[in-house]
Amino acid sequence: MDNMNDEFYMSLALDMAERAQGQTGINPVVGCVVVKNGAMIGLGTHLQRGTGHAEVHALNMAAGQAQGSTAYVTLEPCSHYGKTPPCSQRLIDEGVARVVVACEDPNPQVAGRGVQMLREHGIEVEVGLLRDRALRLNERFIKYILTKQPFVTLKSASTLDGNLATKSGDSKWISNGEAREIVHTLRHRHQGIMVGVNTVIADNPSLTTRTEVPGTNPIRIVIDSGLRIPLDSAVVSDGLAPTIIVTTEAADAAKKATLLEAGVQIIVSGAGPRVDLKAAMVTLGEMEIGSILLEGGGTLNGAMLESGLVDRVILFFAPKIVGGGADAKGTFVFPGVELMKDAISLEGLEVKVLGDNVCISGTPVR
Amino acid sequence: MDNMNDEFYMSLALDMAERAQGQTGINPVVGCVVVKNGAMIGLGTHLQRGTGHAEVHALNMAAGQAQGSTAYVTLEPCSHYGKTPPCSQRLIDEGVARVVVACEDPNPQVAGRGVQMLREHGIEVEVGLLRDRALRLNERFIKYILTKQPFVTLKSASTLDGNLATKSGDSKWISNGEAREIVHTLRHRHQGIMVGVNTVIADNPSLTTRTEVPGTNPIRIVIDSGLRIPLDSAVVSDGLAPTIIVTTEAADAAKKATLLEAGVQIIVSGAGPRVDLKAAMVTLGEMEIGSILLEGGGTLNGAMLESGLVDRVILFFAPKIVGGGADAKGTFVFPGVELMKDAISLEGLEVKVLGDNVCISGTPVR
Repeated sequence: MDNMNDEFYMSLALDMAERAQGQTGINPVVGCVVVKNGAMIGLGTHLQRGTGHAEVHALNMAAGQAQGSTAYVTLEPCSHYGKTPPCSQRLIDEGVARVVVACEDPNPQVAGRGVQMLREHGIEVEVGLLRDRALRLNERFIKYILTKQPFVTLKSASTLDGNLATKSGDSKWISNGEAREIVHTLRHRHQGIMVGVNTVIADNPSLTTRTEVPGTNPIRIVIDSGLRIPLDSAVVSDGLAPTIIVTTEAADAAKKATLLEAGVQIIVSGAGPRVDLKAAMVTLGEMEIGSILLEGGGTLNGAMLESGLVDRVILFFAPKIVGGGADAKGTFVFPGVELMKDAISLEGLEVKVLGDNVCISGTPVR
Repeated sequence: MDNMNDEFYMSLALDMAERAQGQTGINPVVGCVVVKNGAMIGLGTHLQRGTGHAEVHALNMAAGQAQGSTAYVTLEPCSHYGKTPPCSQRLIDEGVARVVVACEDPNPQVAGRGVQMLREHGIEVEVGLLRDRALRLNERFIKYILTKQPFVTLKSASTLDGNLATKSGDSKWISNGEAREIVHTLRHRHQGIMVGVNTVIADNPSLTTRTEVPGTNPIRIVIDSGLRIPLDSAVVSDGLAPTIIVTTEAADAAKKATLLEAGVQIIVSGAGPRVDLKAAMVTLGEMEIGSILLEGGGTLNGAMLESGLVDRVILFFAPKIVGGGADAKGTFVFPGVELMKDAISLEGLEVKVLGDNVCISGTPVR
């Protein structure tokens, strides 16, 4: 960051966008920096759905001085009237001379039209600077805008022999403090957090975001085909965040009524006995939940992965070996593949060493 | 390596020693650099058991000019008559003024006596420069000299869910080319290579060292309680390296005779039905096998680890998930611990990214 060039400003715009992850709902995170006569005259970040876009904030800060300036924007400026007027029009109206864009907006309502509109008004536009980082920042938004289904991040912490717990079920603790802090930041960055009912019964977790500075709590989603969830469990009774229970038509009507009365939402997905996970994702998408952190046990992890519903896998490995064979709980429980070449593989692998833990993440490909 | 200081020369001595790993048998690897008037006048490395020590080679190269010089030695010079005369005496006789030693020789016949002898003759001695690297280089020698049992390195390549194969037994290939090259270098660096008879039956491996430049083949050690090994298996019939079969008193005498006739060695360890692994290690140590690379299946890995016979664990992870539950073959099959806090943990963790594979290694501690 010592060379003053386009990247110098775009990387700041991306930094701003990155910090806003988790607070824009199904909207993308976007940063904007406006530069004129060798100095920044405006900075802006989209902060919350329904409020100003990054360009608007930055141009407001520039207070009418943006004539002839360069605007760095992490995502293509919008060209349509959504909850706010189109940013491309604002850039034109302000007399911005050059716009540098990190990546196109895949939103079908934009998809190049923003860039086209700017060019038609004589603005010089360059697209693609730091594109990979920009796409990665908005991978959740991109999945949702294109499919209307939530982007699912599977997070797990296991031993080196691939277990979530010992044969007696003990799992405290596998990962170290550094890994657990990252997990809580991940919770802040997802709209929903999903577990199976067995996790609720065994650990009674609150599933809230506990970061060093306050974060936002994701909506709690419990997969519970038979509505076995205890009424006094934290997610039903603590009121710290909304809770959605995903169940089946086979579930008990009386228990359902009691749960609704307790204030949780219930989605019925499939006839049973198991929850139809694919249908559940469609419904959750319709409820405008655009991203889910899956902190499942092995069975839910395996089912979601096998159904192709997982978009990113983040595995924390602790330097432990517990043995126990089939009695120990594996990270991924599913029928499995016959041949090694048919394994589900992680692409775009990233490896991070966190003290004595190792974080391996990537995109699952079948 | 840009600052000319003691480390400048000691690191070269360690580099020489490191390259000799695998060719000195139960002897340590040692490097020596002799410096005088601002220039190196002698370099030496111990190459093979029974031949000259590093100091002797370096002083021979110095050809009588070592008066007043500084000698950098990776391991404390010996003080006793072994297969060669004591190096400390040679350093004294040559008039070396200063000796810098990376680490003490734990060999009970030396253990500080070398340093003491030098000091008594007025030589300035410093001990401890780059000690950690030096100790690590000779961890196999140190274990053997102190216990008379082989240092065992457990190497395994698994999927992210801790499996060595799919549920159908397919394991080709888990790890990538870079990881496999490292494994062959590890074979060169160990005196023995150990597998279970099931591996021989399933894969018929040759267990030889196949590196880009020729290496040495380790002695093949097969754990085979019931002498089920096929007579036409590569390790029995190919003659590429000696083979030792470890069995029990319960094994068939006729099969034993046939195998002996085929040229393999047989160790009887325990009454059966399982091989007494602890006793086997004592016997292998008596046979002057000071280091073993364990490339076992899950059962042998688990048994060796649980018996406390493994000194280093090297795990290669490929970015694959295969599922299959109990039908897939796990990396470590053993009864396992009840509590997470009682897990076997790896200390001194090292993590290396090899393309899309990750190597995690450390010392197992119970």
